[in-house]
Amino acid sequence: MIRAGILGAKGYASGEALRWLLGHPEVRVTCLMARVDAAETVESYFPWARSLTERRIEPMNLDQLASSCDVVFLGLPHTASQEYATTLLDNGVKVVDLSADFRFDSVQLYESTYGVKHLAPNLMTKFAYALPELFGDAIPGALGLASPGCYPTATLLALAPLAKREETFDLDFIVVNALSGVSGAGRKVEANYLFCEVNESVAAYSLGKHRHRPEIEEKFAKLNGRSVRITFSTHLLPISRGILATTTVPLLERMTADQAYELYRDYYRDRPFVRLMPPGQSAAIGAVTNTNFCDIGVAVDMHSGVLIVTSAIDNLSKGTSSQAVQGMNILYGLPETLGLLPESTRERHD
Amino acid sequence: MIRAGILGAKGYASGEALRWLLGHPEVRVTCLMARVDAAETVESYFPWARSLTERRIEPMNLDQLASSCDVVFLGLPHTASQEYATTLLDNGVKVVDLSADFRFDSVQLYESTYGVKHLAPNLMTKFAYALPELFGDAIPGALGLASPGCYPTATLLALAPLAKREETFDLDFIVVNALSGVSGAGRKVEANYLFCEVNESVAAYSLGKHRHRPEIEEKFAKLNGRSVRITFSTHLLPISRGILATTTVPLLERMTADQAYELYRDYYRDRPFVRLMPPGQSAAIGAVTNTNFCDIGVAVDMHSGVLIVTSAIDNLSKGTSSQAVQGMNILYGLPETLGLLPESTRERHD
Amino acid sequence: MIRAGILGAKGYASGEALRWLLGHPEVRVTCLMARVDAAETVESYFPWARSLTERRIEPMNLDQLASSCDVVFLGLPHTASQEYATTLLDNGVKVVDLSADFRFDSVQLYESTYGVKHLAPNLMTKFAYALPELFGDAIPGALGLASPGCYPTATLLALAPLAKREETFDLDFIVVNALSGVSGAGRKVEANYLFCEVNESVAAYSLGKHRHRPEIEEKFAKLNGRSVRITFSTHLLPISRGILATTTVPLLERMTADQAYELYRDYYRDRPFVRLMPPGQSAAIGAVTNTNFCDIGVAVDMHSGVLIVTSAIDNLSKGTSSQAVQGMNILYGLPETLGLLPESTRERHD
Amino acid sequence: MIRAGILGAKGYASGEALRWLLGHPEVRVTCLMARVDAAETVESYFPWARSLTERRIEPMNLDQLASSCDVVFLGLPHTASQEYATTLLDNGVKVVDLSADFRFDSVQLYESTYGVKHLAPNLMTKFAYALPELFGDAIPGALGLASPGCYPTATLLALAPLAKREETFDLDFIVVNALSGVSGAGRKVEANYLFCEVNESVAAYSLGKHRHRPEIEEKFAKLNGRSVRITFSTHLLPISRGILATTTVPLLERMTADQAYELYRDYYRDRPFVRLMPPGQSAAIGAVTNTNFCDIGVAVDMHSGVLIVTSAIDNLSKGTSSQAVQGMNILYGLPETLGLLPESTRERHD
Repeated sequence: MIRAGILGAKGYASGEALRWLLGHPEVRVTCLMARVDAAETVESYFPWARSLTERRIEPMNLDQLASSCDVVFLGLPHTASQEYATTLLDNGVKVVDLSADFRFDSVQLYESTYGVKHLAPNLMTKFAYALPELFGDAIPGALGLASPGCYPTATLLALAPLAKREETFDLDFIVVNALSGVSGAGRKVEANYLFCEVNESVAAYSLGKHRHRPEIEEKFAKLNGRSVRITFSTHLLPISRGILATTTVPLLERMTADQAYELYRDYYRDRPFVRLMPPGQSAAIGAVTNTNFCDIGVAVDMHSGVLIVTSAIDNLSKGTSSQAVQGMNILYGLPETLGLLPESTRERHD
Repeated sequence: MIRAGILGAKGYASGEALRWLLGHPEVRVTCLMARVDAAETVESYFPWARSLTERRIEPMNLDQLASSCDVVFLGLPHTASQEYATTLLDNGVKVVDLSADFRFDSVQLYESTYGVKHLAPNLMTKFAYALPELFGDAIPGALGLASPGCYPTATLLALAPLAKREETFDLDFIVVNALSGVSGAGRKVEANYLFCEVNESVAAYSLGKHRHRPEIEEKFAKLNGRSVRITFSTHLLPISRGILATTTVPLLERMTADQAYELYRDYYRDRPFVRLMPPGQSAAIGAVTNTNFCDIGVAVDMHSGVLIVTSAIDNLSKGTSSQAVQGMNILYGLPETLGLLPESTRERHD
Repeated sequence: MIRAGILGAKGYASGEALRWLLGHPEVRVTCLMARVDAAETVESYFPWARSLTERRIEPMNLDQLASSCDVVFLGLPHTASQEYATTLLDNGVKVVDLSADFRFDSVQLYESTYGVKHLAPNLMTKFAYALPELFGDAIPGALGLASPGCYPTATLLALAPLAKREETFDLDFIVVNALSGVSGAGRKVEANYLFCEVNESVAAYSLGKHRHRPEIEEKFAKLNGRSVRITFSTHLLPISRGILATTTVPLLERMTADQAYELYRDYYRDRPFVRLMPPGQSAAIGAVTNTNFCDIGVAVDMHSGVLIVTSAIDNLSKGTSSQAVQGMNILYGLPETLGLLPESTRERHD
Repeated sequence: MIRAGILGAKGYASGEALRWLLGHPEVRVTCLMARVDAAETVESYFPWARSLTERRIEPMNLDQLASSCDVVFLGLPHTASQEYATTLLDNGVKVVDLSADFRFDSVQLYESTYGVKHLAPNLMTKFAYALPELFGDAIPGALGLASPGCYPTATLLALAPLAKREETFDLDFIVVNALSGVSGAGRKVEANYLFCEVNESVAAYSLGKHRHRPEIEEKFAKLNGRSVRITFSTHLLPISRGILATTTVPLLERMTADQAYELYRDYYRDRPFVRLMPPGQSAAIGAVTNTNFCDIGVAVDMHSGVLIVTSAIDNLSKGTSSQAVQGMNILYGLPETLGLLPESTRERHD
């Protein structure tokens, strides 16, 4: 039984991590901590959790945390993770970081993207980028896991099968239009995220400068062997959770939707959490809500000669917390789907 | 005082036409007709209209319609407009058609796009494509107006300033990702548009084959002098009304957001219904709901070298009914903004 | 032409007041002020207002305000109105207060309800409670208008026809269940009103202690000649605007829905902003959004012997700002509906 | 391992039953049938189910169904269940009926409520009304289970602790205002349930004549020993799932919220699926979505002397499908919470 704790247990991502961990057959949640003055009930932050745990959210105490946990999920703002990760790793505790702090291979890219100095650059190599479908091989020996960003998860799963196929796809003209539910912003108490500001509207934001773009480009370059510049536009949707990314890539050769579908089907064969839509159909956010699935739809615009890939995830699940649990499973040598699929369903994949 | 009627007065677009016409100081609504067995109250279809008119929705009777109206708005499915338009024009009644039937210059393109034979191809030239900001010059002498599609309105207003600037913009790689509220599908009683199917989800649809693409390409070719193939992907949003189109176009020369903004500002100078966002900011659907405005935001992705234009309209207003009234104003030599802006505001533009 | 200003011009209610005033044919908006450090654009608070006015929101300056306005709408938190109202009235400026400060006849009731001392109790009698359908007679000679609360507007319009009919209705067992959209809370930047907290949920709040109950009871006592205690429960809805109040009152005599309907019809005859649903049908929020209407549905539960009245308003329009304009019209001897209904529609009522 | 089937497997309630059954450790889903012409994929009706089962939805065949299942969930319209239930029970198959057909003790009340003749009245006594918290004792020996209606579940759990306490509560003046998400209407393709008709609005419906009222009154009479007439008003909410019922009952004796809370706490002690809010606080729909919980909030209006109880459930889970699984667990002698709570949580209750 893995003893798991959550540090920074007040945000939406941490709450979802708690939900998945409570339902995991090989995990016991032993510690919840956050910046609180005194212990608070879990339901004061997560009303759904009433009666589901006797844990309370306690003031932060690293000694107590380290002694009571085998693995700690960090749900802290970026930069805050760096200081705590060092201490936890020193105490032999595994770390699953939900922030951006250990996602990059390049410290310099992290620093220019987030506009801060990295305080624990030497730890970078101890962390595996935990997008198991693409970089799962790096997980087993890691000391820590860096959970990918939500947009990068949806986007990289859409792009990966195109890597190193530059004779077919014009990778220099990739355009990603991504749409995210409001929980993607976390539980920030800002006027922009008030119900009346978001409801019945949609707008783009951070055009040309979203922080997830460098993460996408760095990781895609690893797959592709050559870096490309991606046009990446993000939009805020009036829904609570979910991302839909629509990725267009010009074709250099004629290709049908069926052929494109086959490419993806072969690429994701035996990956239980990637589901393909029938050729020509779009993925939909509603089908993946509260799951660890990424649904992918592959279409071809024969008129303009462009591949159109739609990918849908739940930003708080596959986009953050359940993917973190998926990574943890691999880290501990457990079946990848444990706690993430119903038992009857898991058997189909094992 | 213009006597106006609506034929096919049960759908969402017709309802909004009714709303704008009731508020127009130079219009009197004299006739509402639809495929009904007996007269029905307006509020049985449009609850907001209770007490606002004594008109009822009556069974269709072209003689009565022609004799009681100077202008008739047709809110019928495509192909149905063709038969009625002939009769009405023969009786000296002006026609404002909200369907696709008279939008195309090319009868052949209409027929291949909508998969039907056009029954009144000779009328095509009598109709002006009523997107006043771009094609307003054709309106004054027309017998009928063809209201542009909702997606084409948002997309063409975003694209028009780029026409004939091929040294700066790579018009062969235009990608439009457009998002529409559910009323864009009309009041179709289909499972796809049930609340529970749409709510808290987003998906793309008609990928690579949306009927509005040929309309966009034909009209942009008129502006540009050369036709281009556009990648046009449409998505269904869980909101009632509104469209946001995000258009990306690779830059062939370096350009800042300020420079791009100036291009748009100059192009739309003195156009009261196009509003520009400050450079770099996105348009938002919420700001244009229930208005005839198209808000446009101009940004530049300096990293990938791409212009990103966001354009927002209310699909039932600027996307259909209020734009039809704007066209009618021009057709009758009235101020373009009459009945579409508060009087105090209009003065600022006249 | 009435010169109108808004003090406290940043909140949702003020924004809607601005919208109605901009569309009013006899009003010119001459001044917008709020607690800002320097002048800000209107669209930074109300994106829909871009291009509709050249006014900016300026720092508060009572002298300038008083000299540029005939009437000032106060969109301030309660208690703040009291200090400014005195100054404005002293300068001969009419005041329309959107806060609770001048709604009560009883200073003591105000003070116990809002938990503060009233600083200008002598002004109370100079203000008329501006719910025109019920208390319109007091408006013409008033110096100031106190805009009713949103819940009281919906509830009192449902209850008024029952006043002094105690042989038929058991007024000691009135139960009001009221549901409000999120804008009822104003633009408060609190975690409770974040999109993800409100969306896809409903809960009651302030059970047994909502501040609008004393206001309802005091005003109903004026109509009824005897005070009654009302059970009043409020709920937060995941919609932006609108109130639905469902009011149940036990019947002491047998009564059909048709008879109850007639009672309401007679009571509200010639009141242009109250619309009755057919007997047995419920009012609906959607039909009154962005209007000054209150829709009322009258039903009878023959099984339990209870009258069920549903009343729907837009909390920001009839519940606040458009009702304030309706009161202003009466105050200035203008037609009650001026600027609140399309011209063609107004003729039907005048 | 229980072999479970679903007959009528296309509706929302059946879909949720499928979801819970797939996650149940002691169940294997062996058959899905519905009125289809040929076998269809599960994901064509339930997109979330893609890859989770290899079952398809097959045309109805009672022999095959009876031979492959130990228990069959019936997700059919009322009256349809009656014919199939007879056959299934005759073949020794247990039946869990999600319709209204076997909910009533009184055949006559069923017939007058649903306006049809009951075709299998002798089966009524073989079915237990499966609201385990209140009528669980009847389940173990039953041949079939009648799943309670969604509104009755929320309402009866709010009312039950008041039964036989007529010295304290004036049970002749119970008023229930209940609000339901749209899935409560099932997957009916009717104009009323289109997104644009429901969104951003709320209205009451079936005032004074909702079919769930007789069910509530019959069952409460069993608990109370005396029947009372309840005023029961239902409203449609613009959310997908969830019910909030606000129940008011006049107090005959003074009572504090704390005392009322204690009454409920004692009544529901050791009931794992009823959770009490702190005294005075309301239940919220969002906290119970996708769970089998009923959250109850107890408040007292000291001013009017009324108990206010809020109860929240997910209409498709505790209101239908997960409660059916809870009943099945009891029927089969399994732990009540099996498959309905995460394992780690269940231990706390066992």
